[in-house]
Amino acid sequence: MEFQYENSYEIKDKITASSIAILPVGAVEAHGPHLPLGTDNLLAERVATSVAEQVEAFVLPTLPYGQVWSLRNFPGSINVSNESLISIVVDIGESLYRQGFRTFVMVNGHLGNQPALKNAARVLFTSCPDMKVFYFFYPGMKQAAKEVRETDSAHATYFHACEIETSYMLYLAPEYVDMEKAIKDIPHIPEDADVTPTPWEAFTKSAVLGDATLATKEKGKYIIDIAIRNIVDMLRNNGQK
Amino acid sequence: MEFQYENSYEIKDKITASSIAILPVGAVEAHGPHLPLGTDNLLAERVATSVAEQVEAFVLPTLPYGQVWSLRNFPGSINVSNESLISIVVDIGESLYRQGFRTFVMVNGHLGNQPALKNAARVLFTSCPDMKVFYFFYPGMKQAAKEVRETDSAHATYFHACEIETSYMLYLAPEYVDMEKAIKDIPHIPEDADVTPTPWEAFTKSAVLGDATLATKEKGKYIIDIAIRNIVDMLRNNGQK
Amino acid sequence: MEFQYENSYEIKDKITASSIAILPVGAVEAHGPHLPLGTDNLLAERVATSVAEQVEAFVLPTLPYGQVWSLRNFPGSINVSNESLISIVVDIGESLYRQGFRTFVMVNGHLGNQPALKNAARVLFTSCPDMKVFYFFYPGMKQAAKEVRETDSAHATYFHACEIETSYMLYLAPEYVDMEKAIKDIPHIPEDADVTPTPWEAFTKSAVLGDATLATKEKGKYIIDIAIRNIVDMLRNNGQK
Amino acid sequence: MEFQYENSYEIKDKITASSIAILPVGAVEAHGPHLPLGTDNLLAERVATSVAEQVEAFVLPTLPYGQVWSLRNFPGSINVSNESLISIVVDIGESLYRQGFRTFVMVNGHLGNQPALKNAARVLFTSCPDMKVFYFFYPGMKQAAKEVRETDSAHATYFHACEIETSYMLYLAPEYVDMEKAIKDIPHIPEDADVTPTPWEAFTKSAVLGDATLATKEKGKYIIDIAIRNIVDMLRNNGQK
Amino acid sequence: MEFQYENSYEIKDKITASSIAILPVGAVEAHGPHLPLGTDNLLAERVATSVAEQVEAFVLPTLPYGQVWSLRNFPGSINVSNESLISIVVDIGESLYRQGFRTFVMVNGHLGNQPALKNAARVLFTSCPDMKVFYFFYPGMKQAAKEVRETDSAHATYFHACEIETSYMLYLAPEYVDMEKAIKDIPHIPEDADVTPTPWEAFTKSAVLGDATLATKEKGKYIIDIAIRNIVDMLRNNGQK
Amino acid sequence: MEFQYENSYEIKDKITASSIAILPVGAVEAHGPHLPLGTDNLLAERVATSVAEQVEAFVLPTLPYGQVWSLRNFPGSINVSNESLISIVVDIGESLYRQGFRTFVMVNGHLGNQPALKNAARVLFTSCPDMKVFYFFYPGMKQAAKEVRETDSAHATYFHACEIETSYMLYLAPEYVDMEKAIKDIPHIPEDADVTPTPWEAFTKSAVLGDATLATKEKGKYIIDIAIRNIVDMLRNNGQK
Repeated sequence: MEFQYENSYEIKDKITASSIAILPVGAVEAHGPHLPLGTDNLLAERVATSVAEQVEAFVLPTLPYGQVWSLRNFPGSINVSNESLISIVVDIGESLYRQGFRTFVMVNGHLGNQPALKNAARVLFTSCPDMKVFYFFYPGMKQAAKEVRETDSAHATYFHACEIETSYMLYLAPEYVDMEKAIKDIPHIPEDADVTPTPWEAFTKSAVLGDATLATKEKGKYIIDIAIRNIVDMLRNNGQK
Repeated sequence: MEFQYENSYEIKDKITASSIAILPVGAVEAHGPHLPLGTDNLLAERVATSVAEQVEAFVLPTLPYGQVWSLRNFPGSINVSNESLISIVVDIGESLYRQGFRTFVMVNGHLGNQPALKNAARVLFTSCPDMKVFYFFYPGMKQAAKEVRETDSAHATYFHACEIETSYMLYLAPEYVDMEKAIKDIPHIPEDADVTPTPWEAFTKSAVLGDATLATKEKGKYIIDIAIRNIVDMLRNNGQK
Repeated sequence: MEFQYENSYEIKDKITASSIAILPVGAVEAHGPHLPLGTDNLLAERVATSVAEQVEAFVLPTLPYGQVWSLRNFPGSINVSNESLISIVVDIGESLYRQGFRTFVMVNGHLGNQPALKNAARVLFTSCPDMKVFYFFYPGMKQAAKEVRETDSAHATYFHACEIETSYMLYLAPEYVDMEKAIKDIPHIPEDADVTPTPWEAFTKSAVLGDATLATKEKGKYIIDIAIRNIVDMLRNNGQK
Repeated sequence: MEFQYENSYEIKDKITASSIAILPVGAVEAHGPHLPLGTDNLLAERVATSVAEQVEAFVLPTLPYGQVWSLRNFPGSINVSNESLISIVVDIGESLYRQGFRTFVMVNGHLGNQPALKNAARVLFTSCPDMKVFYFFYPGMKQAAKEVRETDSAHATYFHACEIETSYMLYLAPEYVDMEKAIKDIPHIPEDADVTPTPWEAFTKSAVLGDATLATKEKGKYIIDIAIRNIVDMLRNNGQK
Repeated sequence: MEFQYENSYEIKDKITASSIAILPVGAVEAHGPHLPLGTDNLLAERVATSVAEQVEAFVLPTLPYGQVWSLRNFPGSINVSNESLISIVVDIGESLYRQGFRTFVMVNGHLGNQPALKNAARVLFTSCPDMKVFYFFYPGMKQAAKEVRETDSAHATYFHACEIETSYMLYLAPEYVDMEKAIKDIPHIPEDADVTPTPWEAFTKSAVLGDATLATKEKGKYIIDIAIRNIVDMLRNNGQK
Repeated sequence: MEFQYENSYEIKDKITASSIAILPVGAVEAHGPHLPLGTDNLLAERVATSVAEQVEAFVLPTLPYGQVWSLRNFPGSINVSNESLISIVVDIGESLYRQGFRTFVMVNGHLGNQPALKNAARVLFTSCPDMKVFYFFYPGMKQAAKEVRETDSAHATYFHACEIETSYMLYLAPEYVDMEKAIKDIPHIPEDADVTPTPWEAFTKSAVLGDATLATKEKGKYIIDIAIRNIVDMLRNNGQK
């Protein structure tokens, strides 16, 4: 159910304390030659939609701008600050709370947003005391990706426009993938990239962190289905606490 | 051209000092029984798309949350503060500037956003000195609406879910309008509503400010085409200044 | 009654829930060769005084600095930001509320202050729930001015140092007007001045938007008396809501 | 020279790098039964005017609201925060700098404003590097007051509505003093009032910190003339550094 | 070299572009019955001292307050916000930059500080363009801990007052450890603790996340020595980039 | 009792409404050739420890960074803004309040911190209504110093690295004083240094404001013992109010 296509007269009864509002959060960011700038928006939206169907939730309009500090100097990237992101997400959350929602779920498609979304969730923890707030970023994907990937990961937590993320797109939004342009570009990420500010132009020209040519719809389906199942399970368990 | 479906490799050459980035800005807000909550998003997007075709601009992903203070207590409304809106729009504008854009156009579908967008534009005027920033809200519509409307306007500047806005939707997004539910509800707006904070529940239950049953696609086309032409003209003239 | 000439011992009994505090808000801003920089302060003060006499209100000391972004580069203009203005007005309003006032009226003499005053009023709407806050800028003047003006208006909402505002001064503060220096200077305001940041030096050297030589005390009296009557009526009606 | 009565055409030439802008800063605050709420505004204005005459400076409109935390619960007091005060003073100072002033003088009539004015001056020290900013509060008054006072001071740095401040008013603004209502009320100020937040209602009902009945115009003249001379001397010396 | 025991006359020559300033950052936080509240301060200080000896750096006074949101309701915890932490660290970094340092190293002893320190480092990346800023939290410890631990970790990234952290203390600050009070308390951390705000009182009473009785100095030495070596290596490599 | 060496299990019972938390606040700042940069930290800590022993209070870890605007350009100084200082002190105070403390004492060793600490105390006055907050800076020292000093003070309120402060160090932290390097350097402080921002490099190269060679442990003991006694007395009296 897309929230913005509902009308004001009918929405009132549909929003109950047990109903769930899902906000897809993405970004506009360089994703190499074969994936679109809006990759994270597309992924977040489609994961959100799939979750919503299973738990009867409302999907809110996607918040399509994220914190892309690391790639902000790459062509096409649009960066918003942590402060802006926290501020607008808190406003949205507080509005949902006043509208009667007691479960607010952020389905995030961009790793760089996680600290801001976590911070916003903590603000809402205090201002909306009986609303449960989630900030999901492909829960369980780390283990699942390890099982299907054919190349080593370039970094412990980053994946970007690579075998993995391209597989997500082949599963969820294949119409926006151009596999003919997919490349293999395994960067050497400096060991201090996790402990000092390191714009990615320091180690990659393509913004592809791996071998995108190995991406398949099946790999994407394997990981994404696990992530979606994890989200759905956590939302269902939430009702019983 | 939808910006987010471009890729990072090709976008670099496409962005030139003469190219234009258009940001549709809308809102999620009560619009009576016959129009969806996302009416302002739909309108902003489609006006933006039409403008973009005529001036060869990029359309950015819609910023779908706006300042809806007046209707924030109506079912389905999601309100964000002026501060949040200004902050994220300034971030987006500054990113576009660094990406090489020298014309940033906000096509706004929600009147309540105008003060924040104007404020953001002024911030950008200083921080991005040679970028021209526009914040359009149906330029010329006031006169054009006067020419086609069959009922008096309930307020000097507000129009909402009424003969006028419903006509816009019948022209631009008819698939989201349910004319069978359209109502006539002409409120008596207190004369001090412009000079003291007045949530709209003080004078309307429906959030419809007029007679929506009189809406027609033709009226919408008449006004919207004028607004679009005005936008296009101003953007074209901009090049010659 | 000028609030600041009262003393602390007697003011306590004089402030009751039915009493009204009026804050004149003006600006220091270029007003052409014939009007002083403090024109908006003088007008706001004198309108406030007249209103106060009719509704038995207290007039607070004038807040004499306003947001004059558009004319900030003209000789003599002193600009304060929206943020500063909102912040100090909210402080003043909250103090008045704690002092026992339940009606706080801003009589504003400078159009550029309206967005900030409206924003402040909304903040106070939440923090001082049973205090009514008004932000008046010559209510009803648009229609009244149309009736008396001999030249067309240079802009739909601006009037500045022109036939109209000079007439206000001739009525309310003639000792500060030098009609021998009054000029006629009808600028061509670019059509996009309302939709893109446009410092006024782009279209005028004088800061006079019209024909000041046509100003008369009678025109001023006609419009100002209507505005004052409208303010008084709204304040009186307020008691009955 | 009152700045706000100048006009934009002539002010340009009058503002030179050697000219001085003086901002009187006061407060609206309880001052006992015999002095008006606006005592600090009156004093600041008149000291400023006297200084301006001697150094050929412009006097700006008074900023009539100050930080009166200690007396904020007394009838008639209007309190603004340090943050608001700093913000608006910085805006004013930066505007004066852009207008060409290189000396910005705050003549402050309210002790509680000093920390905010000092803070603002330091901000301007960085943002307006070659503008000299002063924040005067009766320089030299401590010693001078000691020489003329007939009663001991109730506190090392406070004086308020007492023998001293009432004398200032008898000298500078006698028309606002009602000596028939003047009282003697020497409070016992707790020794920890300087080291823990202590609203004045903890130790005084009158807000008079001493024996106002001993005030004379002569005492006021003695101290104020010294303060003014000190200000004038420092401004004159400034030119030679 | 402890920075604060240097004097102003000699420090000038000692600070060169190649010299390094190390800021230990810790927290005051519940650490079970056997470890002190200041555990993270002690660890950060002693790791910093060890690093400093190897790279000839200055150790600054410890910033002893951290973001302990998760444990803020436990006895003895003192929590500061991300905003406060970012603000003071940025101030410190900018001062060091003006003093001539070009390498600023945060040695952090508390996981909860990492997002704020990373954020501060990014601010400094822009404001101090040629200063390298590091934010270390036991680099390499994850793998090293896996090699020595006898019990499974209770959580993928948390370790707290457990076999691991107690071992650190036995190695670096044994005089503050009371092993007689050490307990085993392996909590069941809910699977959604990483995706929704979860104060730790939801799953532990002791704040011990494991079996502290298994801690040994040797385990601590093994991991800490690796972490220190990693820090030293990265600082040394930094010189060659 | 050093708070950070307590453990979470035992601290709960030790914190009662009558117990006191003392926060030493210092600075890292140039103190001439004979005193260390951390002089204010050492003094604050040791005064705090002495007070704590007499009133059975907890001493918190020292906040070792202060607002040193005036000396920020001297070698070794590290400056933090008023805003940062206020923010972190308020956080600490609010945490202490939630932990059960009802008396929060700041023992400050650096004059430049007083405005920020006072401001923070006022914020806490509102947010923690029944917690008493003190901000001490050597209470009574002015009179006591006058009695023992052999040279005139260079300034009415400043003392720095001079006969007085060096005496404090000889009494409280003699191991950090190098009297062989002590100098006499009595600056001429411009008379306007109190009324316009004046970095100390304008009048001193050494940062020593007097004759440090005259410092003795006895002078230090005389003044410090008075200051400590005053603090202790005020804390004891506090219980009876």
